[in-house]
Amino acid sequence: MRLSAAALAGLFALGAAGGLLGDQGHVASGTTAYLSSSKGVPFVWESPLWFPALVGLLTASLAELRLRMWPVRRASSPADGVAAVAVVLGLYALTALIRHQPLGPGTVLVYALAALVWRALGDGAPAAACGVVAAIVGVTSEIVLVASGIFEYAESIDPLAGVPPWLPALYFAFGVVVARLGELCGRAAERP
Amino acid sequence: MRLSAAALAGLFALGAAGGLLGDQGHVASGTTAYLSSSKGVPFVWESPLWFPALVGLLTASLAELRLRMWPVRRASSPADGVAAVAVVLGLYALTALIRHQPLGPGTVLVYALAALVWRALGDGAPAAACGVVAAIVGVTSEIVLVASGIFEYAESIDPLAGVPPWLPALYFAFGVVVARLGELCGRAAERP
Amino acid sequence: MRLSAAALAGLFALGAAGGLLGDQGHVASGTTAYLSSSKGVPFVWESPLWFPALVGLLTASLAELRLRMWPVRRASSPADGVAAVAVVLGLYALTALIRHQPLGPGTVLVYALAALVWRALGDGAPAAACGVVAAIVGVTSEIVLVASGIFEYAESIDPLAGVPPWLPALYFAFGVVVARLGELCGRAAERP
Repeated sequence: MRLSAAALAGLFALGAAGGLLGDQGHVASGTTAYLSSSKGVPFVWESPLWFPALVGLLTASLAELRLRMWPVRRASSPADGVAAVAVVLGLYALTALIRHQPLGPGTVLVYALAALVWRALGDGAPAAACGVVAAIVGVTSEIVLVASGIFEYAESIDPLAGVPPWLPALYFAFGVVVARLGELCGRAAERP
Repeated sequence: MRLSAAALAGLFALGAAGGLLGDQGHVASGTTAYLSSSKGVPFVWESPLWFPALVGLLTASLAELRLRMWPVRRASSPADGVAAVAVVLGLYALTALIRHQPLGPGTVLVYALAALVWRALGDGAPAAACGVVAAIVGVTSEIVLVASGIFEYAESIDPLAGVPPWLPALYFAFGVVVARLGELCGRAAERP
Repeated sequence: MRLSAAALAGLFALGAAGGLLGDQGHVASGTTAYLSSSKGVPFVWESPLWFPALVGLLTASLAELRLRMWPVRRASSPADGVAAVAVVLGLYALTALIRHQPLGPGTVLVYALAALVWRALGDGAPAAACGVVAAIVGVTSEIVLVASGIFEYAESIDPLAGVPPWLPALYFAFGVVVARLGELCGRAAERP
């Protein structure tokens, strides 16, 4: 592994905590609802236990992938990590806040912000690749979970096989942010 | 012309496509409505054919103006172009999303973001000048179209001679973005 | 004093004007309401006279504090001042626009943006310290004013001793912005 056990555990915990915070917003705003078939497992805050676990796992895996596939080309500071986490939590929250807005402009806004996140935080192609991987894995998983009756998106916003059209952009931005966090942890590991 | 025919055509197409996307948001949110006197012409998506044509024309003209009036002083990358387009599409979408919000804070937010767009993307005075030209041309045109009964803004948001008080800021940001795109195309043309 | 009388007066006026603009948004959106016990004093726009005065005083004091406590380490331009003012006015307006949204994701968004403001405008620890001072002074003052029956926040958003949970983040961003303005004025003063 390119990441230390401590870094992997930290990224898992950070992803799990962020997932819980974002999911609370989606549930509170009625963006998503867990269905009775998900009620058999313990809940943490508003989410079934497996949700933060999956987000944490995806976070740690994507950061490791980032470091395995491409060398780290830039210096960074802990403040960059704060900004990266803030960016994805803010965008996650925004998707809850546009719940009752027309889907067209809401979707345009999320894609526009995802593109700006890539421009501001991403290291070009590697960040875009991590964003695309996150979008494919995340959106596919959610489509399967929705099709399985585990949870659902509100009916007015779910035209993309049961999920909202802004979901790929949210996962893309998540992947860009995790790539950045991976770079931060990777550089820290390289220091003597 | 400072811009090649290909660049002018590309900017026209980009502006027309962005206009269609933004106008869909304005119509879907009830920010604007086309009146019966505009129904004589073919519609593309939610807009009469002349709307994307006018936005495309303004885009290509402003980019050409930018290059004629001031030399290009900075290097840029295609990623800057992505960011510039995302910024103006995001701000356009935001003006649709605040449709039912109090006009005061909605207007403050749009002006604040327009100022940040100028700071982040603009090359100082030339960008500000293109923004002001875009605001004058765009807002005046819309006031005339509204007065002619072609379309209207929702009654609760139209105190500025029939258009919303945030409209000058949206066009200003548009002008700043187009100036940036002009610089990008101009630099590409200068390469041997 | 590190700041000239003109700079202090300018910062006071800027803070007072910004406070009036932001407070208009809070009152118009129903985020806050002044109660009858505040009606004895003259009102400016939507605010009792003492409100802009207090914001102006806090602005000038924090800028002076910034310069007394830490040396100015970076060059800046007037455009940075425009961006700094735009950032805090935009965030202030945003807190009015989320008035009827679920409090959880609204709060996450405001904290995320405050963190980005610190990253983009702040000079590290000095900016964070000014932000924390602003948050403590501002939130404490508002809690006292609410407890005294001078004004109130809407019932659905006031779980933090009568004020919204996003209020500390808004004051934090305000403190970061004022620190930046102090640096700008300070550098201007140092020029021969």
